[in-house]
Amino acid sequence: MSYFQRHIFFCLNQRDNGENSCAQHGAQAGFDHCKSRVKKLGLAGPGGVRVNKAGCLDRCAGGPVAVVYPDAVWYSFVDNSDIDEIVESHLKNGEVVERLVLPANIGK
Amino acid sequence: MSYFQRHIFFCLNQRDNGENSCAQHGAQAGFDHCKSRVKKLGLAGPGGVRVNKAGCLDRCAGGPVAVVYPDAVWYSFVDNSDIDEIVESHLKNGEVVERLVLPANIGK
Repeated sequence: MSYFQRHIFFCLNQRDNGENSCAQHGAQAGFDHCKSRVKKLGLAGPGGVRVNKAGCLDRCAGGPVAVVYPDAVWYSFVDNSDIDEIVESHLKNGEVVERLVLPANIGK
Repeated sequence: MSYFQRHIFFCLNQRDNGENSCAQHGAQAGFDHCKSRVKKLGLAGPGGVRVNKAGCLDRCAGGPVAVVYPDAVWYSFVDNSDIDEIVESHLKNGEVVERLVLPANIGK
């Protein structure tokens, strides 16, 4: 059994060389909002949900991105309402939010 | 299918308040060594292995820790030979390194 039922990692990578990175596209705000919602809904903790910071997840073309494990479902999000949907639908109820799933061919 | 066959996250969290954190126990060295070995063995990339930085994974009592997804296997490591074994056995060949697996009751 997985220590966390669902573990979501947000790329918060910040590039300082002028190249695009998730941090320039609202990644931190998405992470903060997700963390706060998960806590408020009482989902956080062992056996529940963990919301995690991560470095570059190497799928920058779809950024900002996050990945939910052990499901291995990748998301691209735009705003807090996208995050709300990921939290309610996937993290809480285990239903993938298909409209936000990163296409398979999106890479670095 | 998972975008990365195996995705390992290292906690690199650094606490500045005097409390223990993975960063004080060789986490960065473990991450660097793992990243370098995976690259050298040609395992890196989509369909292969991704070695990732992460923030606090919230199992600090077992630190330094890393987790391999989608397998959801958690490790505690001491030195580069531990990392070598995780890379060769688990990341390359899919065999869990039982002696390094974090006990289930190890939390924050």
